[in-house]
Amino acid sequence: MRDFVHCVPTRFVFGRGAEQRAGEQVRDFGGTKALIVYGGGSAVRSGLIDRVKASLDGAGVAHVCLGGVKPNPRDTLVYEGIDLARREGVDFILAVGGGSVIDTGKAVAHGVCYDGDFWDLWCGRAKSVRALPVGVVLTMAAAGSESSNSCVITQESTKTKRGLRSELNRPRFAIMNPELAMTLPPYQIASGATDILAHIMERYFTCEKEVDLTDRLCEGAMVAVIRAARIAVKHPDDYDAQAQLMWGSTIAHNDTVGVGRVQDFGSHQIEHELSALYDVAHGAGLAVVFPAWMRYHMDKDVMRFAQFAVRVYGCEMNFEHPEQTALRGIEAHEAFLRDIGMPLTLKEIGARAEDIPALAAHTKVTNPDGTTGGVFHMTREDIENILRLADR
Amino acid sequence: MRDFVHCVPTRFVFGRGAEQRAGEQVRDFGGTKALIVYGGGSAVRSGLIDRVKASLDGAGVAHVCLGGVKPNPRDTLVYEGIDLARREGVDFILAVGGGSVIDTGKAVAHGVCYDGDFWDLWCGRAKSVRALPVGVVLTMAAAGSESSNSCVITQESTKTKRGLRSELNRPRFAIMNPELAMTLPPYQIASGATDILAHIMERYFTCEKEVDLTDRLCEGAMVAVIRAARIAVKHPDDYDAQAQLMWGSTIAHNDTVGVGRVQDFGSHQIEHELSALYDVAHGAGLAVVFPAWMRYHMDKDVMRFAQFAVRVYGCEMNFEHPEQTALRGIEAHEAFLRDIGMPLTLKEIGARAEDIPALAAHTKVTNPDGTTGGVFHMTREDIENILRLADR
Repeated sequence: MRDFVHCVPTRFVFGRGAEQRAGEQVRDFGGTKALIVYGGGSAVRSGLIDRVKASLDGAGVAHVCLGGVKPNPRDTLVYEGIDLARREGVDFILAVGGGSVIDTGKAVAHGVCYDGDFWDLWCGRAKSVRALPVGVVLTMAAAGSESSNSCVITQESTKTKRGLRSELNRPRFAIMNPELAMTLPPYQIASGATDILAHIMERYFTCEKEVDLTDRLCEGAMVAVIRAARIAVKHPDDYDAQAQLMWGSTIAHNDTVGVGRVQDFGSHQIEHELSALYDVAHGAGLAVVFPAWMRYHMDKDVMRFAQFAVRVYGCEMNFEHPEQTALRGIEAHEAFLRDIGMPLTLKEIGARAEDIPALAAHTKVTNPDGTTGGVFHMTREDIENILRLADR
Repeated sequence: MRDFVHCVPTRFVFGRGAEQRAGEQVRDFGGTKALIVYGGGSAVRSGLIDRVKASLDGAGVAHVCLGGVKPNPRDTLVYEGIDLARREGVDFILAVGGGSVIDTGKAVAHGVCYDGDFWDLWCGRAKSVRALPVGVVLTMAAAGSESSNSCVITQESTKTKRGLRSELNRPRFAIMNPELAMTLPPYQIASGATDILAHIMERYFTCEKEVDLTDRLCEGAMVAVIRAARIAVKHPDDYDAQAQLMWGSTIAHNDTVGVGRVQDFGSHQIEHELSALYDVAHGAGLAVVFPAWMRYHMDKDVMRFAQFAVRVYGCEMNFEHPEQTALRGIEAHEAFLRDIGMPLTLKEIGARAEDIPALAAHTKVTNPDGTTGGVFHMTREDIENILRLADR
């Protein structure tokens, strides 16, 4: 196990009707005037925003609203939120939604406390040292942003999607009511589950040795999320399935299952290009990229991919040809993604083969040697090859 | 999944040489003068206390010492610590040791901030509302006190062992260097592993339905801890085995693997009587009590005990007679405990059959109807029966 520092101070308030405790929670953490950040019409139509406002009113917390967050959240709305928060003297950000809403809220929280252009913090021109406190009412199990240290924003003018990792990004509290996810379309539930699994897999396929405990936690979480996803896409009103997905989203990305290991996140970098260019759901993009990434890299650690096949998908171990077992695991994962209605090919998400060189060229370089990925270092050519595997 | 509120704000600093960061951590959390609490000679002889003092000196944190904590920590030393901390104007408690040392530190932290007799807080006569901040340098994987909300103290005059659950009990930081556990005798390593497993099992054997995610996390953690314990008792200098045990001790008892479930803790209540009366290691007492508790209760949820057998110990499922599989699991657990050198009978820990009625009568009642245990409610007669199963 590698050395690590791990701290997730977020207070999780989980269960039916939990959104009614939003006001109490904001006040607990010192908020007196909140900016409520939310997305489209469903949070309003369902009455959720009204319930949250009533809860804030009941706790004596003033509030203003910033609606209209879209998937793959844009810098343009962040600028708007920063202006509004400053003008209104807001001292707390309350994000009511999924990852895009939460990330917009986090970006506003940094931006309010930074004198320059907030994008400086995202593209590495400056380091954030202060942010307003953020609280969350989660409506969708996916990004794990409700307790993660990450925040991903897209610069609209350049279609550049970039993440900021900072301990300032950990929300103070996360209110999690699985009932709120029951009104999501199956495609969004499936995209969310795919994102959850990808967060675990970025930590799992990392050539580590002697990490039995976190391996087992990763595998256990994957088995449970896969089972819950199959149920939830067919029966969105199954509380327990939604609950497993919602808690799964949290532990997948706050390092509960991945402390003391390196992380790869190469697939995420490739996917960011797909969702920035084609505006596809992040999870759907990952469904296309991840199996191709697995096929491309499995030879570099066959036994780990075989372990995944055996322990997560119950494949039988082929002791003579472990690479066959590894391949069966990837196929099983593809079959699962297909079963829950995810795309597996570039074509299905409207991506064109002729864009592949540009997609590869634009993928964020994460290593000093010009490659991408924490474990499997990929050159631009590797990324092109992976995308071509998905062009089928 | 049941509703829950979960918050573990502890900052974990994990890895080789981590104790050198003690001073920096105390200062980070506002400490200017620390009471260093520790146990016997080994922490001094090994040079650990000197290294911690040097780290505090380097960070400009003043310090005084309270040594001499014994296993099953006593109220007498707590009173001494409260006096010393008040006299010296201490504003931070730094516990350097295992569960007994940490619990002594926690009790002092409450006691300093409470005007009356601190035991009031433990026996329910008063509620603690404030405590000094506590930090930990962990030397032993067992109790999980490094981030749990519990603290167990024995009143020496009456041999009464009682726990206090309070969010104030969560340490601010836990410094965890697995190397520090390498000098422990195998018996203590085994006792620690038994305690870790018991903490998971108190959350696992709880007749819950639709808790697949936490079931899988519990099972994965148990498999990894069992494997690591077998290695560590034979090769105490195996860093990775010690690392799995140390991180295992933390997640076993801070609810990482048990959120959204009820907990039983009946076995713990019975064991508290054994260790209070015979001064046996808590883990060794649990090795005697838990298998007997399992045999006594398995009929009430045969399929869960069978699931334990199959998923944790790899037993083959007997579909015609699941109770046979359940029994194989208990036998496998007993064989594991035997393998790592734990006792399984009352005789082995010096307990006498004629004490059984008194042990049962003295066991803490946890339910309004006079029974003990969060799930399997045990009358005094049930407890006597369980202890008789261990009298073999």
